[in-house]
Amino acid sequence: VSAEAIGQATARQAQLTKPAGSLGALERAGIQLAGIYRTSPPPVPGCATVGVFAADHGVCAQGVTPWPQEVTVSMLLNMAAGGAAINVLSGQAGADVMITDVGVKLDYPASPRVRDRKVAAGTRDLSVEPAMTLEQALAAVAVGLDAADEAVASGATILLTGEMGIGNTTPSAALISVFTGAAVATVTGHGAGVDDEVLAHKVEVIERAIALHSPSADDPVSALAAVGGLEIAALVGFILGGARSQVPVILDGVIASAAACVAAAIAPAAKGYLIAGHAGLEPGITAALAHLGLEALVDLGLRLGEGSGAVLALPIVRSSAAILSGMATFADAGIEA
Amino acid sequence: VSAEAIGQATARQAQLTKPAGSLGALERAGIQLAGIYRTSPPPVPGCATVGVFAADHGVCAQGVTPWPQEVTVSMLLNMAAGGAAINVLSGQAGADVMITDVGVKLDYPASPRVRDRKVAAGTRDLSVEPAMTLEQALAAVAVGLDAADEAVASGATILLTGEMGIGNTTPSAALISVFTGAAVATVTGHGAGVDDEVLAHKVEVIERAIALHSPSADDPVSALAAVGGLEIAALVGFILGGARSQVPVILDGVIASAAACVAAAIAPAAKGYLIAGHAGLEPGITAALAHLGLEALVDLGLRLGEGSGAVLALPIVRSSAAILSGMATFADAGIEA
Repeated sequence: VSAEAIGQATARQAQLTKPAGSLGALERAGIQLAGIYRTSPPPVPGCATVGVFAADHGVCAQGVTPWPQEVTVSMLLNMAAGGAAINVLSGQAGADVMITDVGVKLDYPASPRVRDRKVAAGTRDLSVEPAMTLEQALAAVAVGLDAADEAVASGATILLTGEMGIGNTTPSAALISVFTGAAVATVTGHGAGVDDEVLAHKVEVIERAIALHSPSADDPVSALAAVGGLEIAALVGFILGGARSQVPVILDGVIASAAACVAAAIAPAAKGYLIAGHAGLEPGITAALAHLGLEALVDLGLRLGEGSGAVLALPIVRSSAAILSGMATFADAGIEA
Repeated sequence: VSAEAIGQATARQAQLTKPAGSLGALERAGIQLAGIYRTSPPPVPGCATVGVFAADHGVCAQGVTPWPQEVTVSMLLNMAAGGAAINVLSGQAGADVMITDVGVKLDYPASPRVRDRKVAAGTRDLSVEPAMTLEQALAAVAVGLDAADEAVASGATILLTGEMGIGNTTPSAALISVFTGAAVATVTGHGAGVDDEVLAHKVEVIERAIALHSPSADDPVSALAAVGGLEIAALVGFILGGARSQVPVILDGVIASAAACVAAAIAPAAKGYLIAGHAGLEPGITAALAHLGLEALVDLGLRLGEGSGAVLALPIVRSSAAILSGMATFADAGIEA
């Protein structure tokens, strides 16, 4: 990011016809966009792509979620048909949805709306063996990098993270614990609907996996392979790809926050390109965003995933850029500041 | 609002392809829109009008704000020229800005973009005499009612509140104290930039005004006349007009919250049409929204007014309706819920 553009945008915020600081988070986001796009005022990010990565999780064998793995396929096809929440929300926000199968377990009829980049038919059970081999993890990261490149080549000037994978709050909590240093119990939540008893079991499963693999934030790809997921690895690549192409990346919820922790460990400079879309109810988000130095733009109590929280924040991000280019300065308006 | 449509929308939320309740505040907003529009799924509110009402305040003579009253005119003309934050944010959200002078003190060149409905050249100093006569207060309410009718006649299916008036957090805090019963000191904030010393003085001025007029929530129009403002009275009418036309009204910040407390005291049924856009930093908002039973959709740390917080919530409100009409049900997608 450009420190010069950040300085110019900061100075411009003070000249616009409003009390200093009165647009709060909108001012900070606009300044960040100037740094990312290396110009002040920054362009309003028009063409947006939500990268939705789908995969399954071997740890579901441990009963960490009430939903059967068939739901990953059903929801993937629902997204391909345009019937999922992310389709509706993206339609409202004017964003494209790019759906990638990076590791769905079960077979399904091929769909022209689903990019088949399957690295494996789901991960293995991270509580008894590494979820992925190093090669699989790196291949899934490459799928995400390629998706980011493809989106940017198609004109996207902002990327949004999305995902679908029954059971994926379990590897996300494991990664957040590893990368933030927070205790598993403090970063593990109810996901898409487990009760307190299953939650306690989920914590125990994650603690067992961490004891087994001893994943370390100093060896991020190995940690990702041991306790991560294929769609999480793809999101790591998608985030790194966005940063490499110098476009902002809006994070959705806890899955994206986990991927962002891994991406930031691999390439700390990627942090400057991240915008936290939604705070959410999963406790791991709070720990991950604090670790990344990010504050979420909205908190609507969502616990869906798919990219829903990121795409709901998109109009706010666009508005933050438009403020810098569209508002009059005190000098323009003939007002003494 | 229609209890039948609310019931239908509530039932439909449970059938959509997402875990029950996983869209949080978006689900509640969609259900409310179904009730307001009396049909489920509700239409997506496309055509939106931000009603911005501008006026001045005699209480500025007491030094409750560092900004000179000339700024009301400067910002009114800035809005008319399209250079204010509300113009930029409305452009991004696809909303029209309707600017009405209901009581600006100083003269300025007529503008085709400013509706001249001046009831008086500002209010009188509420700390020494009633801010308005009853006739003036009622005339200003009528200005707001007419503006709502005009917006709806022009096609608006959702209204958003906006305002401009140097000093107007003072009458707003007074009204919120009167209508919620909360102590003045707990509902008075720093407005658009007063320090702790001026804040203490502001509280003292409001307490003096309330002791002088003894305004009562049981006589809402008299209370509005005694300690309110012309643009606040117009917002009361705008809110009542929206409810009368059965369209939702998104509230901006503390000024709109004060007006909504008055409107709800006049016509309690109006509460069902209100959506709180932005939580904001002024402590009076919290008290007013709790009194009205509302929860704000976003909190971006804004303290600008103009309608900025309402218009930033508009895409979320639209999305809440789109979810109900656009998402597949479990039955559609062939998923067993």
